[in-house]
Amino acid sequence: MQNSAVTARAHTNIALIKYWGKKDQQLILPMNGSLSLTLDKFYTDTSVEYLPNLNADVFYLNGTEVADPKITRFMDIVRQKTRSSNYALIKSTNHVPTAAGLASSASAYAALALAATAAAGQNFSLTELSRLARRGSGSATRSIFGGFAEWLPGTDDQSSYAQPLDFQTDWDLRMIAIVVDALPKKVSSRHGMQTVVETSPFYPAWIKSATQDLAAIKQAMQNNDFQRFGEIAESNALRMHALNLSAVPHFNYFEPQSLIAMQAVENLRAAGISCYYTMDAGPNVKVICKNKDLDVILDKLHHYFPSDHLLVAAAGPNVKLL
Amino acid sequence: MQNSAVTARAHTNIALIKYWGKKDQQLILPMNGSLSLTLDKFYTDTSVEYLPNLNADVFYLNGTEVADPKITRFMDIVRQKTRSSNYALIKSTNHVPTAAGLASSASAYAALALAATAAAGQNFSLTELSRLARRGSGSATRSIFGGFAEWLPGTDDQSSYAQPLDFQTDWDLRMIAIVVDALPKKVSSRHGMQTVVETSPFYPAWIKSATQDLAAIKQAMQNNDFQRFGEIAESNALRMHALNLSAVPHFNYFEPQSLIAMQAVENLRAAGISCYYTMDAGPNVKVICKNKDLDVILDKLHHYFPSDHLLVAAAGPNVKLL
Repeated sequence: MQNSAVTARAHTNIALIKYWGKKDQQLILPMNGSLSLTLDKFYTDTSVEYLPNLNADVFYLNGTEVADPKITRFMDIVRQKTRSSNYALIKSTNHVPTAAGLASSASAYAALALAATAAAGQNFSLTELSRLARRGSGSATRSIFGGFAEWLPGTDDQSSYAQPLDFQTDWDLRMIAIVVDALPKKVSSRHGMQTVVETSPFYPAWIKSATQDLAAIKQAMQNNDFQRFGEIAESNALRMHALNLSAVPHFNYFEPQSLIAMQAVENLRAAGISCYYTMDAGPNVKVICKNKDLDVILDKLHHYFPSDHLLVAAAGPNVKLL
Repeated sequence: MQNSAVTARAHTNIALIKYWGKKDQQLILPMNGSLSLTLDKFYTDTSVEYLPNLNADVFYLNGTEVADPKITRFMDIVRQKTRSSNYALIKSTNHVPTAAGLASSASAYAALALAATAAAGQNFSLTELSRLARRGSGSATRSIFGGFAEWLPGTDDQSSYAQPLDFQTDWDLRMIAIVVDALPKKVSSRHGMQTVVETSPFYPAWIKSATQDLAAIKQAMQNNDFQRFGEIAESNALRMHALNLSAVPHFNYFEPQSLIAMQAVENLRAAGISCYYTMDAGPNVKVICKNKDLDVILDKLHHYFPSDHLLVAAAGPNVKLL
């Protein structure tokens, strides 16, 4: 075991086929496979140093010490997997604006998985890191890989991990995160998806349809068919939000400005511009487009949203040591 | 057959358990049973006079002659059922503000069913009128009856009709239609529900859940349990809208102001005021409450909507001859 700090960087990702519900709460095994694009602009840098004189993990987030039992639980899993015993000093800096509505837990646990295993002197493969990151946060499973990644749902710890998807599309994708004014999120994704699993009469059909969406979107990527790709992603996202409306109690992440953003994208499409939206457990709308259409789309969105509410990202890289 | 004009009045209704999809397009047999409240403030007056010298039905709507093939098709069914042959002069006046977002076709075909059969010298029972009105518009089936009505889905023309529900609740219900600014409706209910039936993976579960909702809301009425009644109605409405999000192509009736109205109702509930919302194939939000809470609810809604966008109605009567 090394005694010096090791730092890793992982990027967040945006799911195009959504993860929304667990079949195993403990292992974080998802009900269905999902597919994401890792983004270059939003990432977390995390350093880990094991110190023999600590009697508990110490966690600094953006320079402030934070007591987070989830971090401790995750580090216990790391210690088990690396057969180490020391507690760690962990320093994490999120370069994911909270306002972006992108899950910082994805990049956080992906970076922590690499930093914590490397600091323990171990050289985990990306697949091993993906399994490990999953234990911290489901979406972190995919943030180990750059570009497109597919999370194989699996049936146990070993079989549930992400893998990169290397399709030769000519899209040069961009994602625009439209930052929507809203009060703090009322229903966390963890709580929301569990409510859906337990109460939505539509949930069994969702699992089936999401699994079909996943196969179909991979086929669209294989065929270099951006329109089909976007249509499937948009439809899948709205079905996830439909689940929330159908749960007991019902909830939703739509804000008035979310609808304005969605309508703007639909109007752009009606005008012949190929772009599609997705939404996660928050009010922001994320637009997927080709780089060649980026400027005309931003021009249109500027009619409704100030420039600093339009954050553009492209495909990002694998998790890495700094 | 009489030769003088006969005039009937029918009131529109608001569905609390929704009709959203047909199992027979021709006969207009619904996939699931539904339940509604007929409203006193919104109605249609229709006069019918059979004239031997007409060679086609002539239809005036609000004083203007309109060519509407649906009216002719409906009158053909009336002629068949009444064994009459003359064409009719039909004059219809809608007292349903278009802006109210309440289906004027419900009151229109209910009034026409009574006026057209009475003008033909026939004395149809309310059940017979309900069957007949159904052939013009599904929701008209329920507008034959005042107060609460349940539409039994049935399996053929004979078995699909509405019946009144006479529960002894002490609620003195009111409905507030919140008129929301919007462009004209893009997807008609007829087209929307058919798209859902054909493409939503959630549709089979909807039929089952709506059928359960119907039984549960009747039990809540039996138990004089307004909270449960409202929760079921609100949940059922949102599941209908969830279907629309899940269809291919997806569509929805939400406008930014719809969300503001829904959030206002949820905030009222959080403040201890018992009120619930429902929405149909348009952006308006309809709030169900007890008369005793009406003023405090209107006060709150006035923060967001002008007074003339808040239309209040109570339970209305059966269809009748004027």
